Amino acid sequence: MEQFESYLLSHLPRSHSFHPHYEQSLQVMLKGGGKRFRPALLLGVVNAFNPLLCASAYQVALAIEILHTYSLIHDDLPAMDNADLRRGLPTLHTTYDDVTAILAGDALNTYAFEVLSNAPFSDTVLIKLVRELSANGGLNGMVLGQAIDCTFENIPLELEQIKILHIHKTGKLIAASLKMGAIIVGRDDIAQELYDFGIDLGLLFQIQDDILDVTQESEVAGKTTNNDGSKNSFVTVLGLEKSIAEANILADKLTLQMENFGENLQRELSPTLSHYLYRHKG
Amino acid sequence: MEQFESYLLSHLPRSHSFHPHYEQSLQVMLKGGGKRFRPALLLGVVNAFNPLLCASAYQVALAIEILHTYSLIHDDLPAMDNADLRRGLPTLHTTYDDVTAILAGDALNTYAFEVLSNAPFSDTVLIKLVRELSANGGLNGMVLGQAIDCTFENIPLELEQIKILHIHKTGKLIAASLKMGAIIVGRDDIAQELYDFGIDLGLLFQIQDDILDVTQESEVAGKTTNNDGSKNSFVTVLGLEKSIAEANILADKLTLQMENFGENLQRELSPTLSHYLYRHKG
Repeated sequence: MEQFESYLLSHLPRSHSFHPHYEQSLQVMLKGGGKRFRPALLLGVVNAFNPLLCASAYQVALAIEILHTYSLIHDDLPAMDNADLRRGLPTLHTTYDDVTAILAGDALNTYAFEVLSNAPFSDTVLIKLVRELSANGGLNGMVLGQAIDCTFENIPLELEQIKILHIHKTGKLIAASLKMGAIIVGRDDIAQELYDFGIDLGLLFQIQDDILDVTQESEVAGKTTNNDGSKNSFVTVLGLEKSIAEANILADKLTLQMENFGENLQRELSPTLSHYLYRHKG
Repeated sequence: MEQFESYLLSHLPRSHSFHPHYEQSLQVMLKGGGKRFRPALLLGVVNAFNPLLCASAYQVALAIEILHTYSLIHDDLPAMDNADLRRGLPTLHTTYDDVTAILAGDALNTYAFEVLSNAPFSDTVLIKLVRELSANGGLNGMVLGQAIDCTFENIPLELEQIKILHIHKTGKLIAASLKMGAIIVGRDDIAQELYDFGIDLGLLFQIQDDILDVTQESEVAGKTTNNDGSKNSFVTVLGLEKSIAEANILADKLTLQMENFGENLQRELSPTLSHYLYRHKG
């Protein structure tokens, strides 16, 4: 992933004009670090099945990270999470203003498709990738999840509704990252399986986060924790014990599935997933 | 264009979930009318060169209109134009809230590429179309224009800078609409010429608007006019007389070019363009 990070830093969005900070506003959140979780998943799949395509796949991984970054910029806006910090940096609307943050997000959303559509793959592969990213990153994907999250911020949801929220807000882009890796290496036969794996992974990701929120001190979690008892979380609805049981079941299921995907994929994905695929001690 | 309007109304974005107004927020501005100027340009080119492809091209025209609509929703936000009305309807943030308007815009931006990538054309044509729409509708296209417009709202620009503003904010998506028509009918040989024609058309469009703003009464223009003497407009920088002269030069140039494109294209585009391609009387 160090190589991908270098690639990203040398392929930041460029815009030359007399605007004083437009280019800077497009770059700062993208180069501001982050786990590069979605790129790691896509590149893991590509490396497992055809490592020769990995360098070409960087451009696709970058497109996904760009789309993810736009969503963070908009999530942080005063109208949504009103966050001052992101990836240890002041958020865009804090440094500049709301307009700059809204437009940087808009530009990056569209730019993800510009980067993706110019990646060095066949037209047939590229158009499949565009379909996946747009279907999962947009209207009935990530954005629907965010819309549910914001609208029901202070309204209690049922368990099934919380699942729908996180499947959309987090799961679908993770699932698409894995599936897009399969499309690049021509393994359409396992694309759907990887997609379903990604949906479960997104849920596990969120349950672990909710558990961490109530069991860890702020210093350990690296962010403010346990500060919102009214939040729609798995722990609020299920209680801590059942949430842990649910997390363990999902972790076992995903570990088994990863084994079934074969040694190569297991080797490639393990470093990225080990942080989530652990069992809680009873 | 009546047929396209029916097509649009029967192909509105759908989203089924327990969210109370998400689907409605995606549809209302899209079905709220508007001139459908960009679809008319694309379909005009397709009809001129291969009318058999026109029905299939509706889906591409819809994608462009969706992208344009997202930009209107975000432009109207309190952080930008703070507009209460659009196409005679209350703006989204007025009916719901800022979050709903931001997310509806985000969803439609991505959805434009979902609709486009599923249009009934070859993968090679589709990926070219995705490249055009993303390059002109985004980071170094429409969004840059909007960023310049917002940041320099109260700072006087020079003529060349005003041109750069409008070439990006208005011209590039109009130019892309014409070029995408040429790509659909396989006339890549005139794609660039049509694109350049669109850039000039966008400028003329804006100059006519600025002239109208100071010469017409509100009732005639159908919106509030002459209300902002400090606005960066062609009339502010050039004065009314030189603006009219510039508009006449552009109108003559575009009329001549349209004749050179041939009878068919002239016939198809004239109804859409006659409103702009007129000479002001001295």
